[in-house]
Amino acid sequence: MRILVDAMGGDNAPEAIVKGALLAAARTEETIALIGPKERLAELLVSECPDGVPGNIITVGASEVITNDDSPVKAIKTKKDSTIVLGLTILKDGLADAFVSAGSTGALLVGGLLICGRIKGIERPAICSFYPVIGARPSVLVDAGANAECKPRNLYEFALMGSVFMEKVLGVENPRVGLANIGAESEKGNALTKKTYELLSESELNFVGNVEGRDIPEGACDVIVADGFTGNMILKLSEGLVARMFKFMAPKLPKEMIAGIKGQTDYSEYGGAPILGVEKPIIKMHGASGPKAVMNAILKAADFVRTDVIGIVREQIR
Amino acid sequence: MRILVDAMGGDNAPEAIVKGALLAAARTEETIALIGPKERLAELLVSECPDGVPGNIITVGASEVITNDDSPVKAIKTKKDSTIVLGLTILKDGLADAFVSAGSTGALLVGGLLICGRIKGIERPAICSFYPVIGARPSVLVDAGANAECKPRNLYEFALMGSVFMEKVLGVENPRVGLANIGAESEKGNALTKKTYELLSESELNFVGNVEGRDIPEGACDVIVADGFTGNMILKLSEGLVARMFKFMAPKLPKEMIAGIKGQTDYSEYGGAPILGVEKPIIKMHGASGPKAVMNAILKAADFVRTDVIGIVREQIR
Repeated sequence: MRILVDAMGGDNAPEAIVKGALLAAARTEETIALIGPKERLAELLVSECPDGVPGNIITVGASEVITNDDSPVKAIKTKKDSTIVLGLTILKDGLADAFVSAGSTGALLVGGLLICGRIKGIERPAICSFYPVIGARPSVLVDAGANAECKPRNLYEFALMGSVFMEKVLGVENPRVGLANIGAESEKGNALTKKTYELLSESELNFVGNVEGRDIPEGACDVIVADGFTGNMILKLSEGLVARMFKFMAPKLPKEMIAGIKGQTDYSEYGGAPILGVEKPIIKMHGASGPKAVMNAILKAADFVRTDVIGIVREQIR
Repeated sequence: MRILVDAMGGDNAPEAIVKGALLAAARTEETIALIGPKERLAELLVSECPDGVPGNIITVGASEVITNDDSPVKAIKTKKDSTIVLGLTILKDGLADAFVSAGSTGALLVGGLLICGRIKGIERPAICSFYPVIGARPSVLVDAGANAECKPRNLYEFALMGSVFMEKVLGVENPRVGLANIGAESEKGNALTKKTYELLSESELNFVGNVEGRDIPEGACDVIVADGFTGNMILKLSEGLVARMFKFMAPKLPKEMIAGIKGQTDYSEYGGAPILGVEKPIIKMHGASGPKAVMNAILKAADFVRTDVIGIVREQIR
């Protein structure tokens, strides 16, 4: 298996990406291909590995970078030699099995759709992000921000894809699907959640009903289903509130406790967020990913390929 | 001034309400009228005040109670002798200046509209809740859950009403209005937020732009504007996450720190949430309100009346 890693995506690229790839290379036998400016990558690898670069690390040349300031559609169409366009093309052509990037979410979404294509039957791909639960296993949240505007059918697709991911990659049997809503009863919420509630109730999924804001941090379900606006709000608000509480409490807390809870609430520690619904495995990492987060994302990408999440979604959506 | 208090609303009624009314009575010269079953209230008051009930506490008889299980519309139409229907009727007739209740939000909203009426020019009343900010003054959040489905015009009205409340009752000059959204740029978000962004930009309000999930706990603005679905999600998620973090950290934290942060994040400590947009002052308290929260809500209700928030909104919306 070959995991292709965008060496130029994110705030800490390429250093953190290269370091993370090296950490992963020591933990897997799969080939890790770093894509970016070849000479710079070679220099970095040599300086990181004075005793020799591991045999399962290779580099692929790409001269351009798509930034968060680029318009995703325009960038995908014009920056042909960028790490994202070239990387996704290599993925599409079957020369790599997964693409991992901390770069522009918009470009990865647009590129995933335009270059790799949608799974037939899935109308809208979505970002499937981990949602850390303090003191328990994490939930996943779909959609974490790809689709600001959704129809009930989209949310059903998110639920299905999230369930497959949770079951196959995270090993949670019969994952509990919850609909993010503002009341427990079926008739609560807006037009979207009311109709989605019906769809999910009639589905083959393990739908446990609505989950309210105050239930979500308790790990009330394994797969939190939401439109991308609500999902992104849930994710970023949680991130911000945890950071704010830490800022005021950390000075008084025992160090090992800070480390423990920080680890559990660190959105970058969980191995990246797959873009579900496209024909190829694309894993989006947090822009601020450090080496450990990069390593986790690469290793989880290998699990994603190994368990054939895409094949199962393709089959179940029929 | 007479503040009418629903003695039978909320999880801890009537004991916590009576105790809270007594705390408030000691801090204000205004008359506090408790509405509920007269005999029971008299008994409670006598047992709480062995040396005599304060002169500014009176009771008003009402034999029925609207519960959270009642359908709001049906209850308002049929439970004529309930604390909420009778209370709002007394308010409407000018026999009281404000109504404070920890009872059913739905019934208060429906009753507020049907009995007291909307302010002319305001299409949709909204709940204006405090949003605690750790280490800084609280923001307010409008709408905290009255309207699951909104139009841009509604959000503009929420912004205007929230600004008046923040300025008059909380004394924050020229309050910063932020639009809850999933990106900082004007073109980010869904159709509702994009159009609302335009409306707010063109308005006379002190609009500071979009506030993302991660900015909200930092106190990025004074008035957080959101549709009721998003607003309720923001409020309850924050409540749940703070509770979850405390559950795991409290045993290791110094006691005075727990008390400090708990006080700052306690959603019941801030004096209730006015229903803005109706013709009379109606203050909704948290269902779980204890005596101190009840006291705060009564005192803030008096400020609300004194500063004539409703008169100012009426004038500005023209």
